[in-house]
Amino acid sequence: MNLQDNSNVFEETTRHVPVKSWRSWLIGRPLATADAPHQTIGKLIGLAVFSSDAMSSVAYGPQELMVALALTGVSSLRLAFPIAIAIAILLAILTFSYEQTIHAYSGGGGAYIVARDNLGEIPAQVAGAALLTDYVLTVSVSISSGVAQIVSAFPGLFNFRVEIAVGLILFIMLINMRGVKESGATFAIPTYCFLVLAFITVIVGLIRFFTGTLGMVVDPPSLQTGIIQPLTIYIILRAFANGTSSLTGVEAISNGIPAFKEPRSQNAGTTLMWMSGILGTLLLGIAFLSVQIGAIPSESETVISQLARTAFGGQGFLYLAMIIGTTVILVMAANTAFADFPRLSALQAADSFLPRQLTYRGSRLVYSYGIAALAIIASLLVIVFQASVTNLIPLYAIGVFLSFTLSQAGMAHRWWKAGHLAPGIEIKEPGSILRHDDGWLHKMIINGFGSVCTLIVTIVFAFAKFKDGAWIVVILIPSLVGIFLMIHRHYTNLASQLTLEKHIPSVRISRLRVIMPVSGMHRGTVAALRYACTLSDDVTAVHVSIDEKETVKLEEKWENWGEGVRLVVLNSPYRLFLEPLLEYIDKIDVTLRGDEAITIVVPQFIPKHWWNNVLHTRTAEMLRKVLLQRENIVITEVPYQVH
Amino acid sequence: MNLQDNSNVFEETTRHVPVKSWRSWLIGRPLATADAPHQTIGKLIGLAVFSSDAMSSVAYGPQELMVALALTGVSSLRLAFPIAIAIAILLAILTFSYEQTIHAYSGGGGAYIVARDNLGEIPAQVAGAALLTDYVLTVSVSISSGVAQIVSAFPGLFNFRVEIAVGLILFIMLINMRGVKESGATFAIPTYCFLVLAFITVIVGLIRFFTGTLGMVVDPPSLQTGIIQPLTIYIILRAFANGTSSLTGVEAISNGIPAFKEPRSQNAGTTLMWMSGILGTLLLGIAFLSVQIGAIPSESETVISQLARTAFGGQGFLYLAMIIGTTVILVMAANTAFADFPRLSALQAADSFLPRQLTYRGSRLVYSYGIAALAIIASLLVIVFQASVTNLIPLYAIGVFLSFTLSQAGMAHRWWKAGHLAPGIEIKEPGSILRHDDGWLHKMIINGFGSVCTLIVTIVFAFAKFKDGAWIVVILIPSLVGIFLMIHRHYTNLASQLTLEKHIPSVRISRLRVIMPVSGMHRGTVAALRYACTLSDDVTAVHVSIDEKETVKLEEKWENWGEGVRLVVLNSPYRLFLEPLLEYIDKIDVTLRGDEAITIVVPQFIPKHWWNNVLHTRTAEMLRKVLLQRENIVITEVPYQVH
Repeated sequence: MNLQDNSNVFEETTRHVPVKSWRSWLIGRPLATADAPHQTIGKLIGLAVFSSDAMSSVAYGPQELMVALALTGVSSLRLAFPIAIAIAILLAILTFSYEQTIHAYSGGGGAYIVARDNLGEIPAQVAGAALLTDYVLTVSVSISSGVAQIVSAFPGLFNFRVEIAVGLILFIMLINMRGVKESGATFAIPTYCFLVLAFITVIVGLIRFFTGTLGMVVDPPSLQTGIIQPLTIYIILRAFANGTSSLTGVEAISNGIPAFKEPRSQNAGTTLMWMSGILGTLLLGIAFLSVQIGAIPSESETVISQLARTAFGGQGFLYLAMIIGTTVILVMAANTAFADFPRLSALQAADSFLPRQLTYRGSRLVYSYGIAALAIIASLLVIVFQASVTNLIPLYAIGVFLSFTLSQAGMAHRWWKAGHLAPGIEIKEPGSILRHDDGWLHKMIINGFGSVCTLIVTIVFAFAKFKDGAWIVVILIPSLVGIFLMIHRHYTNLASQLTLEKHIPSVRISRLRVIMPVSGMHRGTVAALRYACTLSDDVTAVHVSIDEKETVKLEEKWENWGEGVRLVVLNSPYRLFLEPLLEYIDKIDVTLRGDEAITIVVPQFIPKHWWNNVLHTRTAEMLRKVLLQRENIVITEVPYQVH
Repeated sequence: MNLQDNSNVFEETTRHVPVKSWRSWLIGRPLATADAPHQTIGKLIGLAVFSSDAMSSVAYGPQELMVALALTGVSSLRLAFPIAIAIAILLAILTFSYEQTIHAYSGGGGAYIVARDNLGEIPAQVAGAALLTDYVLTVSVSISSGVAQIVSAFPGLFNFRVEIAVGLILFIMLINMRGVKESGATFAIPTYCFLVLAFITVIVGLIRFFTGTLGMVVDPPSLQTGIIQPLTIYIILRAFANGTSSLTGVEAISNGIPAFKEPRSQNAGTTLMWMSGILGTLLLGIAFLSVQIGAIPSESETVISQLARTAFGGQGFLYLAMIIGTTVILVMAANTAFADFPRLSALQAADSFLPRQLTYRGSRLVYSYGIAALAIIASLLVIVFQASVTNLIPLYAIGVFLSFTLSQAGMAHRWWKAGHLAPGIEIKEPGSILRHDDGWLHKMIINGFGSVCTLIVTIVFAFAKFKDGAWIVVILIPSLVGIFLMIHRHYTNLASQLTLEKHIPSVRISRLRVIMPVSGMHRGTVAALRYACTLSDDVTAVHVSIDEKETVKLEEKWENWGEGVRLVVLNSPYRLFLEPLLEYIDKIDVTLRGDEAITIVVPQFIPKHWWNNVLHTRTAEMLRKVLLQRENIVITEVPYQVH
C-alpha cells in the first residue's frame, strides 16, 4: 500500500489476472487496459476492415437497382448503366466531402460527433439513431446477400438460408469479441482475394465484350414479376434509391479514425480515396456488363453469379472462387458494422443517451455489450425477413443518407464558424480543434453541396420506398430519438438527486432500532439474533403466526435461545406473511425519533444449489424486495449456508 | 399486546384484512383460517363432488373397450358385454375392499396414507406418484372425452377441440380456487341431471330392445382401423384394460373423507355404496345396448351419442340433453381430481416429499399451488395429445390400479396386525386408531383378495398397453419416486443442519469490521457511509479503480465527505470489479480474530421504476449474490431511493 497525499487514501494494485476458462479459449486471453493503444491498424489492414461494407455492396446494389427496373419489363433493364453513373457521381461528391471531415476530426469524425459539435443535441441523436439502425441493417443485408451467393452456386442449400445466415452472424460476433487487431489480420487476406477476383471478372468480361466473344447469359433465371408496370419517374427513382445502397459504408472510415496508426487522418484519408476509386470502378463495370449479358435479377441466382459464369464461360474454378470471394467480402461487410455499432453506442452511452453499460469494455478491450446487442438484433431481422435481400432493402440506406446529410451540414456550419474566427484563436472541442481557415468558403461549399445532395437522396428514399418498408424506419428513427432523450433525462435527473453540491446530510444516527423477523428457531436464526444484538440494545424479534402449532414450538425454544430479546407474535388469520410485518414496521416507523433508524435483520437461508430454492418459500427474499422500496430502512442479511 | 407466561413474548392480532382486488372478484373474498371447519359437505353433495370421476367414465370406458376390440373387426364388438361383466365384478371387489378402508381411516384413507402407515415409506411414495400421475390424466381424459361429446353433436367444433379443452380446465381451476363448498353447490345439480338422463337413456333403450323397436344405429361412423388383426387373448386383455378405465375414481371418496360432515366414515361409506351401484348399472346397461345397436367406436362421434340418438330415435331434445349432461359430468370428473390432487400433494409435502409450498392454503383456504400445478400439467397433456381420448387412454388407469394394489395390501397387513394385538390395547396413528378386531381374518381376506386382483390388472395393463404409451407411465412413476426421495433427503439434511439440539453457538461477536465498496461519491454513498460509522469504529471504504479519472474525482470528494474513514483504492488493470473486491475481503477474512465479524455495507441505489434497472450495471446486486455464498459475512444494504 502506498500512502497518498490524502492521508486517508491507500492505493493497491490487484494482481488479479482473470482465470483461464472456456471464455478465454473462445475469445482469447484477457487484455489489461494498458494494452489498449497497441490495438491500431495500418492502411492496408484498414482498407480491409473498414471498406468491406462499401465494396461488398456491389454484390447487391446493382442487382436491387435492376429488381426495381424489372417491374416495367426486361427492356427497362438497359437503364441500369446510366443510373449507375449517377450513383458513381454521388459517390465522388461524398468522398470529397468526407475527406474534409477526416482531416478536421482526427479523433473520429462520425456523423454523430460532427452533428453534436456543430448542430446540437437533437440532430446528433437523430444521426445516432439513423446510424445505429443502418448498422444493424448492414449486418442483415450483407449476410443475407452472402447467403444468396452461396445458394446461387449450391441451390440445395436454399432451404437453410436463415440458419446459415444466423450462424454467420454469431461467427462474426465471436471474431469481434476477440478484438479489432486480430479480426483485421483474419479479414485482410480474403478481402484482397475478393478485390483481385472482382477485377479479374470485370476485366475478363470487358475484354470478351470488346472482342465480341462475351455473348448472353446462358439459361437465365425467369423474371419474377407480376403485371408489367409502365416506366415512370417513380420507378426510376426507386431504382436509383435501391442502387445507392451501394454507397452505405462510405462513412465507415471517418468513424473509425482512432483505429488507424499515426498519422491517423492522413492514413484514413488515403484509405478513403483508395476505397472510393475501387468501389466506383467495380460498380460501373458490373452494372455495364450485367446489362450487356442480359442478366435477370432473381432470388434464386444473383446477378454476380450470372455475370461470373458468363464471363468465365461456365461454372469452373474461377466462377467458384468469385462466388466464395463475394460471400466472404459480404461477411466482412457485416464485420464493419461490428466495429462501428459498438463504438457509436459507446459514444452515445458516454453522453448519457444510451445505457452506461455500453461504455464498458470487456476482457478483450472491446465493447462486448454493443457487439452482442448488434448480433442479436441483426439475427432477429434475418429471421423475420427470411434472409431475403429484396425484402430488407427498402429499410436500408435511409439511415445512412440521413446521417450523411447531418454530417455534411455540420461540417458546412463548422467551416462557416472557422471562417469567422479571428486568426490565431483556437477553440478546443472534444474531438478536434477549431481554428481559423482561409479556405473556409471553398470547403463550406463542398460540404454544403454534399449535404444538399444527400438530403435530396434521403427524401427520394423515404417516398420511393415508403410503402415497401421504409415506413418502418421513418417511424423507428424518431422513436429511437425519443428513447434516447428519455434515457438522457433519467441520468440527468438521477445526477441532480445524487449530487453532493448544496447537500445537507440528515441528522447523524445515534440509535438503531433493530427488528428481526423470525419464522422458526434454528441455527440460522440464532446466528442472526446474536448479530442483531451486537448492533443495538433495542432489538425486537417479530413472528407472524400462521400455524398455531409452529408458534407454540417457537415460543418454547425462545426461552432457551432468545438471548433475552422480546418476541412479538403477530397473529395472521388470513395466512398472510408480508402484510402484517409491514404494518408492524410502519407502526414503529411513525414513533421514530429523528436520530433513530430502523434496521431489519433478515436471516437468509442459503441452500447449496440454486435449484433447491424451489423447495423453499423464500419469504426473506420477498421481504427484502419490498423493504428496499421504503425510505430510511436498512436491510441486513445474515446468510446461513447449508451444505 | 397481551403479556404471555413467557415474559419476553407479546402477542398481537393484526386487523389486516386483505384488500379487495380483481383476485377477490374472481375467486371470492379471503377466508380466515378459523373459517375452515365449516367447509364440509353431506352425502348428496359428496356424491356429486367425489363420484363424478367414476360415473362419468361410462362415457369413455365402454367406448375405448370397443376401440380395442374393433381392431379385429366389427364382429368382435359382441365381446364388449362379457368383458363389461368382468369389469363390474372387479368393481364389486373394489367397493367392498374400500368400504373397509373408509371405516378404518376416518381421517382420510387414501392409498398414500394407508401405504405409509402399513407398508412403509417407499410403497407410500410409489402410491403417491401413481395417484398424482393418474389425477392429472383424469383431468386430461375426462375433459377430452367431454369435448368429444360436444363435437359429436356439433361437428363444426372439431377443429377447436384443444382450445375448448384448455378453456374448460382453466374454468374448473377457477371454481376450485374459490373453495370446495361452493364448487359442491355449483356441481350438484348438473351431476344429478346427468344421472337422471343416463338412466332414462338406458331404460328407454332397454324397453325398446325388449319390445323389439330399438333397431340398429342409423348412419354409424365408419370403422377407423387398418389391417384386421386376429382375435387373440392379447386383444381381449387390451380391451379389458381399456374398459377398466371406468373404475378410476372409485378411490376418490376414501381420499376425501375429511370433506364429509360427521359422522364422516358412515356418510362416506354410504356414498361409496351408492356410487358403485349406479356406476355398475350404467356400465352394464350402456355396454349391452351399444352392442345391440351395433355402435361403432370413432373419434368423430362417441358411442354415447350413437346410443342416445338410437334410443331416442333421433337428435331431439332428450338426445341433446343427454350429450350436454354427459359433457358436464365429465367436467365434474375433472373437478374430482382438482379436489384430490392438491390434497394428496399437500400430504406428501407435509411429509417432506414434495415442496413445502404445497401445504400452504391460499386466501380461500384451498391449496392454491396444487390446483394451479394440476391445471397447468393437464393442459399441457391435452395440447400434446391433441385432446384425443384414444391417444391418452394407454397412459391412464395404471397409476390408479397400482395405488389400489398398495392400498389393499396395506389394509390386509393392517388387519393382520389388528388380529395379533391384545384386546384393549390401542395404537394411535396419525390418521386412525389401531385396535384389536375379532373379524380381522375375514377383513384381511377381503382386502387381500382385492389387492391380488388389482395387482393382476396392473400387470395386464403395463404389458397390454406398453407400446401404446404405458411405457411413459412405467418410466415416470419410478422417476417421480426418485425425485420425492431426493426432496426428502434435502429437507432431512437441512433439518439436521439447522437443529438447535446439541448446537454450540460460536463465540459472541464483540467487534465488527465494516467494509464498504464505493464506486463514486453521491448522496447515497454519504448516507451509507454515515450508517456504516454507527456500526463500528473499524470502517474501510474500498474503491475498485477501472477509470483513473473517476478515481481522482472520488479522492477529491473524499476529503470533504469521507467522514474521516480510510479509503482503499484497488487498481484493476483488467477492468474487473467483483474479483479485486472479493480478493480484498478474503485478505481481511484471514486476519480476523475469533470474536470479529465482517459486515459489508452496500449502498443500494433504488430507481423509481424497475425498468430503470436496465440503465444501471447493478454491481451492488451482483456483489450481494456472491457474498451471500460466503460464510461469516453479513451484508447490509442501505437503500437510497431516487424519485
